[in-house]
Amino acid sequence: MKILAAQLNPRVGDLTHNTDRILAALDLARTSGADLVVTPELALTGYPPRDLLDRPRLHEAVAEALLTLTRATRGGPALLVGLPLPHQSRPHQYQNAALLIEDGRLLARHNKLLLPSYDVFDEARHFLPGDALTAVSFRGRTLLLSICEDLWACDDPKLRARYGYDPLDDAQPADLLINLSASPFAHGKLERRRSTLAAAAAKLQTPILYLNQVGANDELIFDGNSLLMLPDGRAKQLAPAFLEASNTFDLDRLDETPDLADADPVDLTLQALVTGIRDYFHKSGFSRALLGLSGGIDSALTAALAVRALGPDSVIGLLMPSQFSSQGSLDDATALAQNLGIKTHTIPIEPAFVALRDTLRPSFENQTHGLTEENLQARIRGILLMAHANHQNALLLTTGNKSELAVGYCTLYGDMCGALAPIADLTKGRVWQLARHLNRDGILIPVNSIEKPPSAELRENQTDQDSLPPYEILDLLVEAYVELEQAPEDLIRNGFDPDTVARVTRLIDLSEHKRRQTPPVLRVTEKAFGTGRRYPIAAAPVAKL
Amino acid sequence: MKILAAQLNPRVGDLTHNTDRILAALDLARTSGADLVVTPELALTGYPPRDLLDRPRLHEAVAEALLTLTRATRGGPALLVGLPLPHQSRPHQYQNAALLIEDGRLLARHNKLLLPSYDVFDEARHFLPGDALTAVSFRGRTLLLSICEDLWACDDPKLRARYGYDPLDDAQPADLLINLSASPFAHGKLERRRSTLAAAAAKLQTPILYLNQVGANDELIFDGNSLLMLPDGRAKQLAPAFLEASNTFDLDRLDETPDLADADPVDLTLQALVTGIRDYFHKSGFSRALLGLSGGIDSALTAALAVRALGPDSVIGLLMPSQFSSQGSLDDATALAQNLGIKTHTIPIEPAFVALRDTLRPSFENQTHGLTEENLQARIRGILLMAHANHQNALLLTTGNKSELAVGYCTLYGDMCGALAPIADLTKGRVWQLARHLNRDGILIPVNSIEKPPSAELRENQTDQDSLPPYEILDLLVEAYVELEQAPEDLIRNGFDPDTVARVTRLIDLSEHKRRQTPPVLRVTEKAFGTGRRYPIAAAPVAKL
Repeated sequence: MKILAAQLNPRVGDLTHNTDRILAALDLARTSGADLVVTPELALTGYPPRDLLDRPRLHEAVAEALLTLTRATRGGPALLVGLPLPHQSRPHQYQNAALLIEDGRLLARHNKLLLPSYDVFDEARHFLPGDALTAVSFRGRTLLLSICEDLWACDDPKLRARYGYDPLDDAQPADLLINLSASPFAHGKLERRRSTLAAAAAKLQTPILYLNQVGANDELIFDGNSLLMLPDGRAKQLAPAFLEASNTFDLDRLDETPDLADADPVDLTLQALVTGIRDYFHKSGFSRALLGLSGGIDSALTAALAVRALGPDSVIGLLMPSQFSSQGSLDDATALAQNLGIKTHTIPIEPAFVALRDTLRPSFENQTHGLTEENLQARIRGILLMAHANHQNALLLTTGNKSELAVGYCTLYGDMCGALAPIADLTKGRVWQLARHLNRDGILIPVNSIEKPPSAELRENQTDQDSLPPYEILDLLVEAYVELEQAPEDLIRNGFDPDTVARVTRLIDLSEHKRRQTPPVLRVTEKAFGTGRRYPIAAAPVAKL
Repeated sequence: MKILAAQLNPRVGDLTHNTDRILAALDLARTSGADLVVTPELALTGYPPRDLLDRPRLHEAVAEALLTLTRATRGGPALLVGLPLPHQSRPHQYQNAALLIEDGRLLARHNKLLLPSYDVFDEARHFLPGDALTAVSFRGRTLLLSICEDLWACDDPKLRARYGYDPLDDAQPADLLINLSASPFAHGKLERRRSTLAAAAAKLQTPILYLNQVGANDELIFDGNSLLMLPDGRAKQLAPAFLEASNTFDLDRLDETPDLADADPVDLTLQALVTGIRDYFHKSGFSRALLGLSGGIDSALTAALAVRALGPDSVIGLLMPSQFSSQGSLDDATALAQNLGIKTHTIPIEPAFVALRDTLRPSFENQTHGLTEENLQARIRGILLMAHANHQNALLLTTGNKSELAVGYCTLYGDMCGALAPIADLTKGRVWQLARHLNRDGILIPVNSIEKPPSAELRENQTDQDSLPPYEILDLLVEAYVELEQAPEDLIRNGFDPDTVARVTRLIDLSEHKRRQTPPVLRVTEKAFGTGRRYPIAAAPVAKL
């Protein structure tokens, strides 16, 4: 039996586009003599459809598309497609389902059992769960159908406790366990996925076809990396990382599929971010990116990622020096632009700063205020960038990193302006790591931008370390407090300086209001700022709980 | 039997404060000879605790506070308190619970059955459901315990379908059904709440003590309005709207409690917004508000609400005229400030505008661009406001309304700047309605601000209606498309002009990226922009689904 694995990059809510892609996969399967086409989870709507699922019209459109797809299976390959479907007895309720359709007839329906409702996932908001894994006899084989999370309780005690059971406990071995997925990328996720799938395949003594969505939808980046997992733990690569692909395998000759390739984790994160930028732009209908180039490492990395995603002709850099900008910074920014082959404009902010400062002076009663003036500079740059974005029909990229965003070392409506925050889920150390990785095959990012002490250059001789602990400490604190949700006393017990812990956790708590107004942050860790971390603002400081 | 209803205003995550408030209610009950103190839902953590529930330290702090509360019941009144508790068999899982504690011993535990996971609610994210309403014998009476949503399926077929059952179906009549709630205010919510409670009381032939949280936490405003619902449908007022209160009633003399007072819905919305502003500031540790006064109705209403919430000495207005501002607008803003008794500064934006325009000119190759220049003015005002907010340690209020925010008739990092958006859940028509209501007892908001055609005054002789349909049409479309989730074809079928429908729905779809970066919007309808409406950005236009 030959199965075509359609690793698709759907557009959320665009049922016409998504249906066309599935029809193209069916055509290809017909040509190549495959028996079955399998799509990712919710391939018809794209994942995550979010509150589009609350709109009655979406479900009408799904029903119309389903008719088209059903007709397309007549006399050809069958289709196993992921889509939202009405619950069979409860009115106005829906399930995250997979339909197996053969020759114009419905052969089986599976309803997702385990509905993730944590971090970025909101499935209990939209769906009711199914009852059990679905076994179906198809052309002489037994297929077992599952969707994404359905397999993940098998080696995770916390998920088992959450859902109260593991669906694999009651399942019988089959010829193939199929898992339709939309599993977002994160650092370390591939290893976790591989070990979970190996545990599931071993537990059921059944090979698994793991078919994952590819491409990015807002914050979430899907890596694809669809694979076959054999009961003995060997993994076979079905489709590449971060690319749409439709590949066929023979269920009777699984050994002929190539082994899963090892991937460099730093390179994967890089590819993820490039995918995230590219799809955000293309799916929003924009082709041009704009960003400020300070000569520092954050804007340099962001620019390099944008160039990889969109091409050098589609990226524009603005150099906006002030009286506090060093010549070195201007040189570094210029060298970067040359290395990347992107166009720049240089716009000094001094005249606007003087005009605004003088405008404010009477109402400030001639008092000056350092932080107010620092913010003023950042906000003038924000205005200039947005004016250029408006003027050139470009989207502005925010260049802040996770360490800064955690402690609020950034200016609302200043350097936080932008349509997308590509590197705001990278701590500063990871920014440096990715920059060095990009330079492996020749210098793209000026060495000076990597090696000099980071500075916002908003006052004379300023460096980040005037206000913040060294990044090697700060990054660890951010990871422990934000990503691992440890308490200050845990951090102190783990050897961090108590004053530093108190200061950093307080800054993180106080910056929640800033984070609420960031653009979408491309997610490359298991706990990014954004829709996956929902904290109150006008509340007690978390650190003092 | 005498019961003290403690309608509390907890601070989210501040267990020390919240415990103190509950202890104070116990003291009061001891003095007044009450048998039992009842708190709102999750009174110990405040509602909604959001992802604080993911932090292990929160649950340790809850356990510590519970010890204190348990000790405090020795030899005195009993306590029925709402709090998160670990699930009794599933590790690291929690329930939204209520504990009845008498004389230092646990008498009963109820676990919330129906966990709302729609709109602003995320309870399935954090909790596992309980099994049934909890009946407990207490001092010779049978009390039936429930938490908020537990009663709401009884007259709502959609909720019944969602949860698959109505807990009241299996319940036996009791002497009193107690419902611990944290039920946010919305226009029309009180009527819905009253009819639901009447249906529940009639179904079970049992009086209901409905005890609601009061005060605001970020977007959500809780009106209190705790009440007794008798089986014959009569409602008795236990505590006022929007105020903390601890009142005692006698279970044997329910008739002696005064009838529920009718309230003017416009006045309730006004009180809600005042509460929302006041608590956001106080719970964030700020006392001063700043806002721009344009002479228009939106900023006038926002200023009047801020003065009610914080007092005239704590509100500062900035008048920021440009070459396009009329003398009438300046006069209206000045008159408003005088009526409200607030301090103002006047800061012309022309010099900064000229400086920024000249700064941009070379890089724009001397092209001018109307929209870019309009945005520039709005963003200069944003900068000036933020500089003053920084300088005066004040929080900036955003003055945009829901109609504008829906269609994106607002400038990111310009008039959208702010820490809180008090009126962004009011359509323009509701803004006018509230302004007129505020003027009932004498003119606060200049009549001219209410009656003149709205204008952003960003170019010569501009009015909102140059770019938008009349507000009486636009408001209806926003309500139908956003709040009721109707499709464009429904709107056209209901008699709206097809071109207007196409234009407005397209604008609403395209503005999602702006709404993602708004400050928290005080919620006064059942569907506000913010955490309760989760739409994708880089996706197909909703209107084209």
